[in-house]
Amino acid sequence: MILTVTLNTALDITYRVPSLKPHASHRVSEVTVRPGGKGINAARVLAALGHEVTVTGFAGGATGRELRDRLASQAPGVVDALVPVAGATRRTTAVVDARTGDTTQFNEPGPVVGPAEWATLQDVYKELLGSVSAVALCGSLPPGLPVGAYAGLIRTARAAGVPVLLDTSGEALRRGVAARPDIIKPNAAELAELTGSHEPLRAAQDARRRGARAVVASLGADGLLAHTPDGIWRAAPPARVQGNPTGAGDSVVAGLLSALAENLPWPDRLARAAALSTATVLSPAAGEFDRQAYEKLLGQVAVTAEVNAA
Amino acid sequence: MILTVTLNTALDITYRVPSLKPHASHRVSEVTVRPGGKGINAARVLAALGHEVTVTGFAGGATGRELRDRLASQAPGVVDALVPVAGATRRTTAVVDARTGDTTQFNEPGPVVGPAEWATLQDVYKELLGSVSAVALCGSLPPGLPVGAYAGLIRTARAAGVPVLLDTSGEALRRGVAARPDIIKPNAAELAELTGSHEPLRAAQDARRRGARAVVASLGADGLLAHTPDGIWRAAPPARVQGNPTGAGDSVVAGLLSALAENLPWPDRLARAAALSTATVLSPAAGEFDRQAYEKLLGQVAVTAEVNAA
Repeated sequence: MILTVTLNTALDITYRVPSLKPHASHRVSEVTVRPGGKGINAARVLAALGHEVTVTGFAGGATGRELRDRLASQAPGVVDALVPVAGATRRTTAVVDARTGDTTQFNEPGPVVGPAEWATLQDVYKELLGSVSAVALCGSLPPGLPVGAYAGLIRTARAAGVPVLLDTSGEALRRGVAARPDIIKPNAAELAELTGSHEPLRAAQDARRRGARAVVASLGADGLLAHTPDGIWRAAPPARVQGNPTGAGDSVVAGLLSALAENLPWPDRLARAAALSTATVLSPAAGEFDRQAYEKLLGQVAVTAEVNAA
Repeated sequence: MILTVTLNTALDITYRVPSLKPHASHRVSEVTVRPGGKGINAARVLAALGHEVTVTGFAGGATGRELRDRLASQAPGVVDALVPVAGATRRTTAVVDARTGDTTQFNEPGPVVGPAEWATLQDVYKELLGSVSAVALCGSLPPGLPVGAYAGLIRTARAAGVPVLLDTSGEALRRGVAARPDIIKPNAAELAELTGSHEPLRAAQDARRRGARAVVASLGADGLLAHTPDGIWRAAPPARVQGNPTGAGDSVVAGLLSALAENLPWPDRLARAAALSTATVLSPAAGEFDRQAYEKLLGQVAVTAEVNAA
């Protein structure tokens, strides 16, 4: 079984409007609601690939109840091990301008999580680790949690002998990296913020020096750059694609975990992650992947080894 | 008891953001959630004024459940006679730009209401009419309802001998007016759309010819214009005020109904409506009114009779 942890889960709401006009009133022509947060998105992809997957994190209030209801109905195969919290799960609202395709995003901060709730989550997590082959820690921290929250969860996973992937940003990433996660998956901006370097190869090497065993940087249309103990690789789709990038990073996480759980070597992990990510961009629905495109892309992703010039 | 009907109830969400930037991602710094829809807003004001008040309309899905929970906790004294519906109650999201104070609004369409649900609402409404002194029909129609829905509810109220106020727009207003409601409360734009005239006095007279027994037009900072069988009046606050106009129109409805239930003459009804409306603009929280300001304004609103020049 694979476990994903989403401490700040979200009810993802997407509004389609004919054209976004600041300070005007808009009739929303189309509303989509999904259970969200990076770890939940990755879990949906993992379940669709046929993996047994469990999600934990916090859920509370009316929005938390709706998230859990939708998880049961919209994410078949994903086991719900979310921990109840007194505050309300946040909404994230994406407003898509139908004319330009551009998205304007509004993210609520999330519930304030208390010490007892955080202790319960750690207990649940520790117990779940007994039966999982890999774990991913995903997304932002809700208010109230210590900034070293992920660092603690990483140490617990390492003590249990479970490989752990960290996908977060800012100070939570910095503190998490120091706890020596097996993989981090920053995007270019997150990697630059962590290391101070805007040169991805140099920055990835620096992130490894700071504690990450392997770094897989998602560089948008340039594909993935992996800096690992086994070597350095770049993985790129056969051509640049246009589409909806929402959830593409979560599909990278799903691809890496899926291949890690099957003990595949790095080039195969990267091919799977890059193909899933590209197939997610190609799917019109945010966070879904186009299965036909994924299967076709698997054989087309170019994974090239790189000599470390640094 | 006073009854308000809100066929398209809403969960009103307000986001405060530092500055609205189209196509960017925003951290919401403050989230407010209220049970909403025009009739529910008016009912809250009526309850705060000490009236017994019942609300009906439709509520469904997770958002409908949250609306009803919040109605119980946030609107003490308002009796919930909402009718369950299979679809989900809509959200309305107002994004307030903290820098400029401007609001950008996103309104979901609302649930599709089926014929059986509509029939149930009509039965509940008919039964409630047996014990009410006045009824207000408020807001837009959800998808699925006949455009003449309000006209039918008006005829039922008239048959029961209950005075009925209609506050809607577009074709629902046009059809409703023909069913001879006791009062309509259009704003300047709604009145112009109904009559084709942008001159409020002439337009109000025309709306009465179309069937409305009395017309109270809310003209924003210019106050109220009432065209009634007893005379024509203008009611204006002592000075223009600045603030949040959200809910000001619903407070006009509450003021008119409150005074109607007490059998007050038109000038007193208008003074109450104008004072409540102005006190709502003065309250920083959307849809709330400043009670101290209301009590002070009651004696300061100028109600002036006008000779009909038309």
